[in-house]
Amino acid sequence: MARVNMEHSVETALNSYLEEISDTELLSENVNIEEALSRILYEDIIVKKDHPPFDRALTDGYALKSGDISYATEASPVILRIIGEVNVGSKEKLSISPKEAVKISKGAFLPENADAVLLPEDVEPEKDYIKTVKSVVPENYVTRQGEDLKTGEVFIRKNRKLRPQDIGGIIGIGCRQVKVYKKPVVTIIPTGNELVPLDVEPDYHQIIASNGYVLKGFVEQIGGIGTTSTIVRDDLNRVKSAISKALEVSDMVLVSGGSSTGSKDNTLKAVESLENSKIIAHGVSMKPGGHVLLATVGGKPVIGLPGHPVSNMTCFNVFGKPVLRKLAGTPRSFWQERKETIKLDAFLAKNIKSPEGKEDYVRVRLFEEEDKKILAYPYTGKSSFLSTLVKSHGVIRIPAECIALYEGDRVEVMLF
Amino acid sequence: MARVNMEHSVETALNSYLEEISDTELLSENVNIEEALSRILYEDIIVKKDHPPFDRALTDGYALKSGDISYATEASPVILRIIGEVNVGSKEKLSISPKEAVKISKGAFLPENADAVLLPEDVEPEKDYIKTVKSVVPENYVTRQGEDLKTGEVFIRKNRKLRPQDIGGIIGIGCRQVKVYKKPVVTIIPTGNELVPLDVEPDYHQIIASNGYVLKGFVEQIGGIGTTSTIVRDDLNRVKSAISKALEVSDMVLVSGGSSTGSKDNTLKAVESLENSKIIAHGVSMKPGGHVLLATVGGKPVIGLPGHPVSNMTCFNVFGKPVLRKLAGTPRSFWQERKETIKLDAFLAKNIKSPEGKEDYVRVRLFEEEDKKILAYPYTGKSSFLSTLVKSHGVIRIPAECIALYEGDRVEVMLF
Repeated sequence: MARVNMEHSVETALNSYLEEISDTELLSENVNIEEALSRILYEDIIVKKDHPPFDRALTDGYALKSGDISYATEASPVILRIIGEVNVGSKEKLSISPKEAVKISKGAFLPENADAVLLPEDVEPEKDYIKTVKSVVPENYVTRQGEDLKTGEVFIRKNRKLRPQDIGGIIGIGCRQVKVYKKPVVTIIPTGNELVPLDVEPDYHQIIASNGYVLKGFVEQIGGIGTTSTIVRDDLNRVKSAISKALEVSDMVLVSGGSSTGSKDNTLKAVESLENSKIIAHGVSMKPGGHVLLATVGGKPVIGLPGHPVSNMTCFNVFGKPVLRKLAGTPRSFWQERKETIKLDAFLAKNIKSPEGKEDYVRVRLFEEEDKKILAYPYTGKSSFLSTLVKSHGVIRIPAECIALYEGDRVEVMLF
Repeated sequence: MARVNMEHSVETALNSYLEEISDTELLSENVNIEEALSRILYEDIIVKKDHPPFDRALTDGYALKSGDISYATEASPVILRIIGEVNVGSKEKLSISPKEAVKISKGAFLPENADAVLLPEDVEPEKDYIKTVKSVVPENYVTRQGEDLKTGEVFIRKNRKLRPQDIGGIIGIGCRQVKVYKKPVVTIIPTGNELVPLDVEPDYHQIIASNGYVLKGFVEQIGGIGTTSTIVRDDLNRVKSAISKALEVSDMVLVSGGSSTGSKDNTLKAVESLENSKIIAHGVSMKPGGHVLLATVGGKPVIGLPGHPVSNMTCFNVFGKPVLRKLAGTPRSFWQERKETIKLDAFLAKNIKSPEGKEDYVRVRLFEEEDKKILAYPYTGKSSFLSTLVKSHGVIRIPAECIALYEGDRVEVMLF
């Protein structure tokens, strides 16, 4: 049995791993804009024509030259001749001369020489004329061609994860397709002699393979396509052939170990025996999940995750997630990052001991007190426990050098 | 033209609206667990059998009675007889007598009378015997039947939005289907003479209908099913028949107004003329979006949204979102709420004036400074502008009674 090397810190291991895949060429594809929600932009979107495309009225009213009525008062009202009417949808281009106005509806073409719109309530209409005692400033209720967006400017920078309003904006400037990153395909391989598939009633000593569904869910939330292979028994050749087959059709492979010690070694040996494989770390000083295997085969990431549900999820979140985000072309602007990783300040409700030299990921259950203070109750349950997975609201990270945290300590909780 | 009544505050209008739909009966459906990600639980999930289902070993090693080796030391090692071996997947139920042990693998059945597991490295194996100089505490590396979850306990409370790990947990306790809230169907009706569909090249005075795509995106992110109808012209009868048809197949209807004044009135008149209609508010003291129409027809919410993209989205977020969340059976626990609405503290980078008596929603662009302080630059662009929609990162809410905020003021930004 190969001994697990626990020398790597989480940070070193993760950085080496990200460095290792930094040259991976990310592929793009064109998608119709109505299917682009939550996809990640591969290139900047450039404005192709001015928006608005012409000068227009921002309200119903009367388009006029503001200079014509700049001296209008109760004592000396100004009278303007109505030379026509423009409605939304009308293509007519009118032009006004001094002391003339045009009845206009919101969104319609501003007549040539007009520079403002007067509200209907500020006007006394009389057959072909209007009388007003109000003056307006130039540009009142008017928007000019290109005032919103100018031809050639960058509308949205690449790497943004598209929000509903971005889809609307992109349609608004006349694009019908966008170039986005291809979704990375992640194959999840559940291994373990004790595992049975979901549609089989497990015998009393068997376990339904559930990690694959958890990993698939995370993969899809991050923006990948997750597929779970059939269960592979703890046999070196079968594990090797499953990884090899998965690599043919995937950008990343997750081998979800059985809970027996043997299966972990099979993953290591299988990866080592594949051509162009490279072991980045086998064993990281963290808890739970110290037995993780970080490798690449032909430049593609292959991660061996421990089988216990809590270790499995923790290792995926610590290593799999950042790697997959990189492959998915994930947003880098700080505010989109904030949306993806939600952190809360809380106060620890109980003392926790933490192993020296290991980064410790402790699940917590949160309670909000009446004064809005949030208390975090640590879940120190065993890593095989389903209850800690499901009943915890988030996780706190205790650095390797820290050996204890105390009741009342302020902690940062990553919600999950 | 019906005058817009601006008397309602946002809070009054929203509360009346939520109150109005509070009796709506929410429907449920059973879905397979592998399709239940992000669905909202309709009923508590109860544990049906103990987990673990039997006492088992948490590591490879030797199962024994801790009392047998409690006096083991270097000076007086203890010798135990190996009476057999249990592996994961083996169904054999062994039983040990005093001074006996069983070789065991991780996850395997704990033999009867054993109460601890000793690690292989703490043992000197000899043919049918092991010798040890180490003592162990009772329950060392052992987990007991039901220690994780007990039959009959509540595993997950209803109304939780299911996370990947919840799916894993539910599979782990042997459920293959869950009862979740049915997704509410929301029909979006784009109205306006100036609108053309996405597949038509707009003439210079026309606009591609984009609000429907934005609303559909939000509806789906909240957990509804969004469908956008064909564009309806600004004609009372057509608007009326479109709403009426939509109500037959939907739980909620959004009428997205054209930008002309006429279309807003058509929505009001159309709704008023339908049987069992009730106007909750027509006009709310907010900016942008003061012209919103909040109504029900036969108890189903019908919202008339202004056509300008910024007003459209703001009104949907302020009124449509909470109403739809209610219909979708959305989670109520504070930590899941935190995940859904992400707020950041920022400092205003410029003074803003705000209209007195109106709740003001100001879009902001965020910049993170080197010291992690976040600056919020207000976007005071016109509500027809696509640039403010796309380039802003979030929104700040200025209460009705506040008429200005100043550079350096601390503000809470809702990211969108």
